[in-house]
Amino acid sequence: MSDLHGLIDAFAAFGDSGDGGVRRLTGTTEDAAARALLAAEFRRRGFALAVDGIGNMFGRAGLAPEAAEVVLTGSHLDSQPTGGRYDGTYGVIAATLAADALRARAAANPDAVRRDVVVVNWTNEEGARFQPSLTGSSVFTGALPLDTARDLRDGAGVALGAALDAIGWTGDAAPAFDIARYVELHVEQGDRLERAGAAIGVVTACWAARKLSIVFQGAPSHTGPTPMPRRRDALRAAARAIEALHGLVADDPDTHVSAARISVEPNSPNVVPARVQVWFEVRHRDVARTAAIGDAFLAAAVAGAEPLGVAVEVAIDERRAAQIFDRDGTALVAAAARRLGLPAIDTETVAGHDAVALMRKMPSTLIFVPSRGGLSHCPEEYTAPADLDAGVAVLTEVLWDLVTAG
Amino acid sequence: MSDLHGLIDAFAAFGDSGDGGVRRLTGTTEDAAARALLAAEFRRRGFALAVDGIGNMFGRAGLAPEAAEVVLTGSHLDSQPTGGRYDGTYGVIAATLAADALRARAAANPDAVRRDVVVVNWTNEEGARFQPSLTGSSVFTGALPLDTARDLRDGAGVALGAALDAIGWTGDAAPAFDIARYVELHVEQGDRLERAGAAIGVVTACWAARKLSIVFQGAPSHTGPTPMPRRRDALRAAARAIEALHGLVADDPDTHVSAARISVEPNSPNVVPARVQVWFEVRHRDVARTAAIGDAFLAAAVAGAEPLGVAVEVAIDERRAAQIFDRDGTALVAAAARRLGLPAIDTETVAGHDAVALMRKMPSTLIFVPSRGGLSHCPEEYTAPADLDAGVAVLTEVLWDLVTAG
Repeated sequence: MSDLHGLIDAFAAFGDSGDGGVRRLTGTTEDAAARALLAAEFRRRGFALAVDGIGNMFGRAGLAPEAAEVVLTGSHLDSQPTGGRYDGTYGVIAATLAADALRARAAANPDAVRRDVVVVNWTNEEGARFQPSLTGSSVFTGALPLDTARDLRDGAGVALGAALDAIGWTGDAAPAFDIARYVELHVEQGDRLERAGAAIGVVTACWAARKLSIVFQGAPSHTGPTPMPRRRDALRAAARAIEALHGLVADDPDTHVSAARISVEPNSPNVVPARVQVWFEVRHRDVARTAAIGDAFLAAAVAGAEPLGVAVEVAIDERRAAQIFDRDGTALVAAAARRLGLPAIDTETVAGHDAVALMRKMPSTLIFVPSRGGLSHCPEEYTAPADLDAGVAVLTEVLWDLVTAG
Repeated sequence: MSDLHGLIDAFAAFGDSGDGGVRRLTGTTEDAAARALLAAEFRRRGFALAVDGIGNMFGRAGLAPEAAEVVLTGSHLDSQPTGGRYDGTYGVIAATLAADALRARAAANPDAVRRDVVVVNWTNEEGARFQPSLTGSSVFTGALPLDTARDLRDGAGVALGAALDAIGWTGDAAPAFDIARYVELHVEQGDRLERAGAAIGVVTACWAARKLSIVFQGAPSHTGPTPMPRRRDALRAAARAIEALHGLVADDPDTHVSAARISVEPNSPNVVPARVQVWFEVRHRDVARTAAIGDAFLAAAVAGAEPLGVAVEVAIDERRAAQIFDRDGTALVAAAARRLGLPAIDTETVAGHDAVALMRKMPSTLIFVPSRGGLSHCPEEYTAPADLDAGVAVLTEVLWDLVTAG
C-alpha cells in the first residue's frame, strides 16, 4: 500500500486548486495529464490499456490473460469545479493497486484464478462540464448512445467528443470480455461511517431523487421608476421558492434538498429579472418521500409566485427510484471486512455513482470509506490515511474472492 | 412632426427583438446601424456632425453658425437587452426634429437668434453592456476619464474603446462651443403623469439611490450526501436577503427596491453554492430613507445568513444623493406647456439620465412625456403618438426660448 498516498498526491497535482482541492473537468488539459499518469501506472505494471469511444480507460491486469471472464473495478478521475482529492480518484488508484497485489497473489496460486481483473476510469462521472453525469458508465451499459454522449455540449458549446479528440483520448476499443461483477471503492461523502465509528460502509442501496428544474416567468421592466406593484419579478419568486423548499424539510435531516444552479435573464442590474431557471433536488431513501416533498414544493413555488404575477413552469422533473445493490456483493464486502477485523456497517449512498449506473447491466458493488465531516465536492474533503488503506485492503480481498470463485 | 413616428419605426428596426421591443447594445452592429441613420438624418438637414473619443455624436443645426454659445439637446440610442422603442431614441429624434423646426423659425426671425442648437447622442447611457451607465455624458463632463471609459470591459472582456473602433465610431472632435444649457426629452418610465392625466412632466429632482452589491460567502459541498446541518449554502442566504429587502418596504410603494443581477459559484447542480453576489438597489426621493433602508437591509441579510454559516460582505455601497434641477429650466418648461395648453405637473425622476450627469457641469433640464403603465426596459414600453407630439412641441418652444434669450 506504500504507493497509495504518493499516488493520491501525484494525481492531486493535476488541477491543483491551491487550497487543498482539485479542479479537473472532463476533456481539459488537467484531465489529459491525469489520464497520462494512469496510463503510465498501467504500463509500469504490465496492464494492457484499451480506450473506448467515450474515453473510458480499461487496464487489464493479466492475472488470467486467457480468461474470457473478468471482474471490473475502478471509478473516475474527473472532479467538480471545487472538487476534493479523493472523490473518484481514490477508487481508480485503489483498483490499480489492488489488481497489482492480486497479480502477485495469483502468481503464487496459479490454479486458483479463474478470472482476470480490469481497472477502469469512467469519463465524466461528475457531470460538471457536460450534463448528464455518469456519462462514460452510461454509454458502457447502453443507457446513453455513444453519438448522443459525444454530442453533449459544455457551456461554451464545445462537444464532449471534440474535447476528448482534442486531448487525444478518443479510442475505438470496445472491450471484448464478459464481466462477472463491477466493484467500486469510493469515499462516503456523508458522515454516517464517521458517526458510527466504522471503517467500511457496505452500500446496500442508492437513495431516490427527484430533480426539478423550474422556470419562473416574470416580465422585464426598469428597476428604478417602475411602480413596485407593476413589477413581475422572477428572481423574487425564485428566492421564495428556494427558501420554501428548505422550510419544508427543516425538521427532517434525512431529506436532503438543494437549489444549486440558477440562470437569470437579462441579469442586468437595471432590469427587473424576467426569466429565472433554478435546478432543485430532493433526495431521500424512499421514493414516496421525494415525490411528496416535490409536490409540496411545487405548490409552494406557485403560491409564492402567483401574488408576484410570476408564472411557474416545470422544465425538468426527473424521478429516480431507490436502487438496491445485489446481496451476493454486499455479503462479500461484509465478510472481507470481518476477516480483516475492520468495523463495517450497512449504509446507503445518497449520491449517484458509476456503480449505480452499472447495475443496469451487471451485478454491481459499492464500498465506502469515511469522509471527515461528511464533506465532499470541496477542498476540505478528507479521508484519513488509515481509512484509505483499509479500503484498499477490503477491495483486494473482495476482488480475490471474485476472481477465484467457482 | 410628420417625421417623428416614421423615425421611431425606422430606429426600432435596428435591434428589433420581434416582440415590439429593441435590443441595441453599445458598440454592436445594431448600434452602428442606428448611428448611421442618425448621421444621415443630420446630413439631409445640413447639421454638421462631430464625434468625440467616446463616440458621442454631435450635430450642429446651424441656426446661428457663427455663435460661440449653443444649447445642447438629445439623449441616447443604446437600449437595455430587453429594451423598448422609446427610451432614449425618442429624445434623440425629438431633438433633431425640434432643431430642424427652429432653423425654419430662425430663417424667418434672423435677428432674434443668439445661440445655435447642437443635437447629441450619448454613448452607452444604459450601462447594459459596459458598466457604469451614463458613460458618454460622464466623459463629456469630466467625471469619467476618457481612457478609463474606453477600457471598460463587457462580459466577454471586450473594451468599450475597441468596440467603438470596430464599428467605426471613435472620433477625435472635442466639440468647440460653450453650452448655455442641456435639455433632454425622455419618456417618464413611471406612471405619475398617467395617473395625473398630465401630458408633460416638469422634472424638478432626481431621486436618491443606494446601490449595494453583496457577497454571500458559504462553502461548496455535495448537494446529495452532505448532511443538511453541515451545509453553508450561499444561495439560500441570498434568497433570504432578496425576500427580506422587499419585506422591508412592502407597505411603502414610494421606496423602490430591486435585486436584479446575481452571480453564483460554482453554479453546478451538484455543488452547494459557495459564493453568491447579488446587486441590490434602494431608491427614494429622500437620501435619509435610502440610507436607513439600506442599513436595515444589511442587518437583515446578516441575520438571515448567520444561522446558515454564511458570511456577508459588502462589495459595493454606492450612495447617490437626490439632485435638484435648476429652477430657471423648470420654469421655462412649465411656461412652454402652459402656452401650448398642455397639462403639466412637477415630478421627479427615479432613474438616472444623461441630464442628471450633465448637471455636474452646466444647467440641465429634463422633460417627461407619459409611459403607459409606467413600464420601460421592456417590449411593452409605450407612449401614445399624441403625447410624443406634445413632447416635441414643448421641447421646440423651450429651445426657441433658450436660443433667443437675451
